[in-house]
Amino acid sequence: MLRYDITTNDWVIFAPARSQRPHELRRTPEPVPPPAGRCPFCPGNEDLTPSEIRAIRNGEQWSVRVIPNRFPALRIEEDVRRIYDGRLFGAMGGCGAHEVIIESPEHDRVLADQPVAHIESLLQVLRDRHVDLMRDRRFQTIVLFKNHGPAAGTSLSHPHWQLIATPVVPHTLRLRYAIATQYFDQFGTCLYCDVLGEELAARTRVVDENDAFAAIVPYASRTPFETWIMPKAMATSFSRLEASRFGPLAEILRRMLRKLRSGLENPDFNITIKSAARGDEDEEYFLWYMRIVPRVSMTAGFELGSGMWINTVLPEDAAAYLREAAS
Amino acid sequence: MLRYDITTNDWVIFAPARSQRPHELRRTPEPVPPPAGRCPFCPGNEDLTPSEIRAIRNGEQWSVRVIPNRFPALRIEEDVRRIYDGRLFGAMGGCGAHEVIIESPEHDRVLADQPVAHIESLLQVLRDRHVDLMRDRRFQTIVLFKNHGPAAGTSLSHPHWQLIATPVVPHTLRLRYAIATQYFDQFGTCLYCDVLGEELAARTRVVDENDAFAAIVPYASRTPFETWIMPKAMATSFSRLEASRFGPLAEILRRMLRKLRSGLENPDFNITIKSAARGDEDEEYFLWYMRIVPRVSMTAGFELGSGMWINTVLPEDAAAYLREAAS
Repeated sequence: MLRYDITTNDWVIFAPARSQRPHELRRTPEPVPPPAGRCPFCPGNEDLTPSEIRAIRNGEQWSVRVIPNRFPALRIEEDVRRIYDGRLFGAMGGCGAHEVIIESPEHDRVLADQPVAHIESLLQVLRDRHVDLMRDRRFQTIVLFKNHGPAAGTSLSHPHWQLIATPVVPHTLRLRYAIATQYFDQFGTCLYCDVLGEELAARTRVVDENDAFAAIVPYASRTPFETWIMPKAMATSFSRLEASRFGPLAEILRRMLRKLRSGLENPDFNITIKSAARGDEDEEYFLWYMRIVPRVSMTAGFELGSGMWINTVLPEDAAAYLREAAS
Repeated sequence: MLRYDITTNDWVIFAPARSQRPHELRRTPEPVPPPAGRCPFCPGNEDLTPSEIRAIRNGEQWSVRVIPNRFPALRIEEDVRRIYDGRLFGAMGGCGAHEVIIESPEHDRVLADQPVAHIESLLQVLRDRHVDLMRDRRFQTIVLFKNHGPAAGTSLSHPHWQLIATPVVPHTLRLRYAIATQYFDQFGTCLYCDVLGEELAARTRVVDENDAFAAIVPYASRTPFETWIMPKAMATSFSRLEASRFGPLAEILRRMLRKLRSGLENPDFNITIKSAARGDEDEEYFLWYMRIVPRVSMTAGFELGSGMWINTVLPEDAAAYLREAAS
């Protein structure tokens, strides 16, 4: 079920089946930890997971595998109709999709240590799932993310990504889009492209780049060492990522993860892919990007109370530090 | 320094003096932990803190004490003028105030175990600091909060609150205010008062109440067991809290904290006080409230990527559970 927060215009997902007792609570929909001794993501244990959605195979062995989350936050079977109890309390069914993308058969090899070619395969699977799920017109956005380590919210160490297809456009995405649209109306250019252009000219916050992508620490980044990998060519939706870009993206992502690991003492981290909502995929004033957030700090009362953030590391310093870090 | 995020319209506070090395990073401005063996908040160690701003005393001994944060996120001496480098990169001085309110002289007594009369004194100090700092017309909002326990972002166990006066109105507050204003224009009533009225009629999400306040688990709460303590009489700013309300607020706050402790196995938690910005303190379409967030779950990639939340406990279930919990 989703409920509408009339004070913020956000929809909140309720997935009460995921926990029973207070000390077992988890806010984030994570795949459930393995039964003793058997990792459900390892080859040979495929019987522990729901039926496969997609896989890349070399002969018998899979190299990337997509399965449904066993305890999904949203399900394809639910209804998207809104039901209002008076004008204050709106709800709808928990319609959507929730998939797990197993990065590789190797339980102990993290993404930073995968060959570039393997990361290319992974990116292709992520993009293809994005494209495929958007064929269901009830889904408004595709949220692709990776939780690495307990501080980033994962309990399963076998490397994996997750995908959640949402039946509503998140309000924060609508707001960002409105800001970019207003900017386009005022200046006639894409806000994100302009930001990237200025960053590439100034170079103080650029960590890395290749022909197709640049990795920057944003000017007003909310958390220390937060990094955005942005495409140099206009593209609002990750679903439009061309096959020729898998290589450059895999390469820069791998280097950034290695820099974060060596520079920040192997931090836990999240990766998210920001992408346009349904219908906006081919506009000229938005840009998809990959956001990497190392979990080196915490949110507390000030952030909860104000919605503002305090960052203890200047982006220029973070970028200079990461530029020097071994990749 | 503050920087403007042109993609979200948020100001981000940069406080780089607070940490040097990556593993020492903390996002949240917390008072610095004590030098070995001496708690700077305990009586007798007053020399370890900057000069006192305010205290309530019974004879020689203080019972509540307000001091500046030694490593403030914002400082009164800074400038509020905006400086733009082109149209994309806006900054301003880190102007504001950052205070610590020591709850009591007792190092080991948590708020839930203080007598109601003592909590009344604390609330009076919080309100008075709010009122006093708003006399500085550069400050736009007062953010009052408490971090309890490491998972809530504190490293100092001696019970305390913090106050940050911000030189800008947080964008999320502007958005909430715009939503409430639109609601007022459409329906002629206060959105928050209407919500509270419906909750008090339905009773399914009410945890506790007295003549002046009600504690509810919001209909679309983002996190499990999140609780709002809302005033029953219209009041948009915590600074307007009348002395006659200190008692009822202290009483319901104490009961809620005891319920959370007994029901949720003594969780870490944050408390924040949501209050109107400068100039909006006497409008008829907003309501201040106290929000208590037990840290029983985590944010991860989905929340970072979408801005949406997944809650694993239905508010009705949370409210029923907390109603039964011992206070």
